[in-house]
Amino acid sequence: MRAARHTLGVTESEKKARYSLCGLPLARYARGARSSVGDKGAATELAYALSAAPQFDAAFRATFAELLAWRRDVRHFRTEEAPDEATLAELFHLAAFAPSVGNCQPTRFVRVDDEARRASIRANFEAANHEALGAYGGERAALYARLKLAGLSDAPIQLAVFCDEATEQGHGLGVRTMAETRRYSTVCALHTFWLSARARGLGVGWVSILDPGVIAEALDVPRAWTFIAYLCVGFAREEHLIPELERAGWQAREAHPVVRR
Amino acid sequence: MRAARHTLGVTESEKKARYSLCGLPLARYARGARSSVGDKGAATELAYALSAAPQFDAAFRATFAELLAWRRDVRHFRTEEAPDEATLAELFHLAAFAPSVGNCQPTRFVRVDDEARRASIRANFEAANHEALGAYGGERAALYARLKLAGLSDAPIQLAVFCDEATEQGHGLGVRTMAETRRYSTVCALHTFWLSARARGLGVGWVSILDPGVIAEALDVPRAWTFIAYLCVGFAREEHLIPELERAGWQAREAHPVVRR
Repeated sequence: MRAARHTLGVTESEKKARYSLCGLPLARYARGARSSVGDKGAATELAYALSAAPQFDAAFRATFAELLAWRRDVRHFRTEEAPDEATLAELFHLAAFAPSVGNCQPTRFVRVDDEARRASIRANFEAANHEALGAYGGERAALYARLKLAGLSDAPIQLAVFCDEATEQGHGLGVRTMAETRRYSTVCALHTFWLSARARGLGVGWVSILDPGVIAEALDVPRAWTFIAYLCVGFAREEHLIPELERAGWQAREAHPVVRR
Repeated sequence: MRAARHTLGVTESEKKARYSLCGLPLARYARGARSSVGDKGAATELAYALSAAPQFDAAFRATFAELLAWRRDVRHFRTEEAPDEATLAELFHLAAFAPSVGNCQPTRFVRVDDEARRASIRANFEAANHEALGAYGGERAALYARLKLAGLSDAPIQLAVFCDEATEQGHGLGVRTMAETRRYSTVCALHTFWLSARARGLGVGWVSILDPGVIAEALDVPRAWTFIAYLCVGFAREEHLIPELERAGWQAREAHPVVRR
């Protein structure tokens, strides 16, 4: 491992940056300092965390590779148990560490609990899925019809994820020529949520077979919020290393081309 | 921890899913089985990996939280050293484990080495950045002018990241009503690359202050490839827990709102 050192002292703006540390379960605290953190408070945490950047070792990297490999897009959830509120709060907290352009933090999570609203989302999916099926023919159509593409009926937690295109946070930095980068920031946040969930034994499924135009209205959110994804969250009924679409013979995973210029 | 068990045997399609395992540094191999894996080959790896899903423990989750917290968008790179080729190959490999709609794997990495092409990207940034500066007034303009927003001059590795909108992989699944999900898949891939890089002591900076319309031409890639991001990659000159934009007083990090419906 290379040595990585934090070379600047604690600045005033760093001291004010409470969000970045409060509630964060930093590994170093687990390794000996845990008992004293609560007493000394956030300032001590801050000074401690700033003393040196962490160095990630081979064992961590190997386990992180397993997390990536076993993540899965889950469509089969256990209905008899749900993630607890503390875990969900931790996932939302961690998602805020995702990169966001200009630090604009444009992600808006909408937790959908109301049965009528959930039914509206299911109906939206059923209609879009029916249309999609109609676009395939022959074997492909038969295969598509057999796929289970959403866990909308059994996922205990359902999240519609939006990007607030009108946020003033970030003061427009980085989005003048590429406004879509705000939406990409939201994708990073939901991907962080997803990986963090899997690390807690939770599965996430991303539903995109939806007419996005009517979702903001169905969920009564501001017009400036762009719908990005609908996430089903819960305990997966089975764990797999191989993606469901690959096991079903729809599409195997391929490497990404890397070209040189 | 909850028990998570893989409940199905190895299917034919799983046996064919070579990509998902070959070259993957699974943690379990590091814990005792390493010497025998090479001899027994991919089939043994596969059976071994499928025997049970991994259970991630509290120590891993805490270190993963540190990875998220210390990721950073890096704009200051050491020019005297560059990541080695084996590390880059590993990062590309891991990026392919990111979620992609319909398993379509639409991400295309373009590694930009040619000095003339790099100069073209720098000129593109300078023009866009100059225009952006003109949109601010007073204190904000002075602050913007002081920010360093790209590491284009010193990053040893530079990657333009595209999404192939015309890929036939995935057979169109999940993109009929939301074609943008293909681009979101590419964002998940680059975010995976980013986190994996940080776990190896490498910094990544995402440049979005660019006119995206001319980049495909400047880099001579197919018209069907949509430009998503330009990444600067190398060893960061400093490590920080607090984002540079927050330290500079531009924008502090905020939590994402979670609303109930």
